[in-house]
Amino acid sequence: MKALLLVAHGSRREKSNQEVIALVDKIKATNLSGYDIFHASFLEIAKPSILDSIEECVNEGASSIVLLPYFLNSGNHVVEDIPHIVNQANTKFPDLDIKTTTHIGASNLMMDLIISIAEKH
Amino acid sequence: MKALLLVAHGSRREKSNQEVIALVDKIKATNLSGYDIFHASFLEIAKPSILDSIEECVNEGASSIVLLPYFLNSGNHVVEDIPHIVNQANTKFPDLDIKTTTHIGASNLMMDLIISIAEKH
Repeated sequence: MKALLLVAHGSRREKSNQEVIALVDKIKATNLSGYDIFHASFLEIAKPSILDSIEECVNEGASSIVLLPYFLNSGNHVVEDIPHIVNQANTKFPDLDIKTTTHIGASNLMMDLIISIAEKH
Repeated sequence: MKALLLVAHGSRREKSNQEVIALVDKIKATNLSGYDIFHASFLEIAKPSILDSIEECVNEGASSIVLLPYFLNSGNHVVEDIPHIVNQANTKFPDLDIKTTTHIGASNLMMDLIISIAEKH
């Protein structure tokens, strides 16, 4: 089974974390083709952690995980911190296939998203 | 004339700030209908500040500004800090029409953007 794991920074403000979880629930509700398991996780401050969520995916039967960084910029969190944690997960779960995608800020659709907001005003 | 002002948080990492400026340059290059002036600005850490960018828009002839928060969650920056600065700008430029849009994380297209990344893996 294949899991989609959205990784956000994590906030002291619980409402912000809940927004991330709600976003994953919405994606799950689309029955996104090719994916069986959907989770949100947080790099810091909030729970569940990335490693805990990866373990949860494994417990639910995942053999591969697509880890998608919900970050706007290619800062240290994206370039260093997340890959470091993925390395730890690879060591802990050697049979698990973990792929990390580009962060959302690098998507070509980001410009379209901004334009769509701007066009309403 | 009408200005689009993208407001990001601002990073100590200059490359992250440059990514925001490059994004605005890309949007400007589309000749987005209804807009004449395009700028990026930063809530903190990086320059130009929001107020400085608003003043720059006015100097370039803007009579209205659409301020678009490049933020993922409805945290204090979106709910309090940006509106506070907009209030200051309204006092300083009483004839200027400033509209603040929803932050990008609240866009319905955010789910599509995430799905488009997930579908490639």
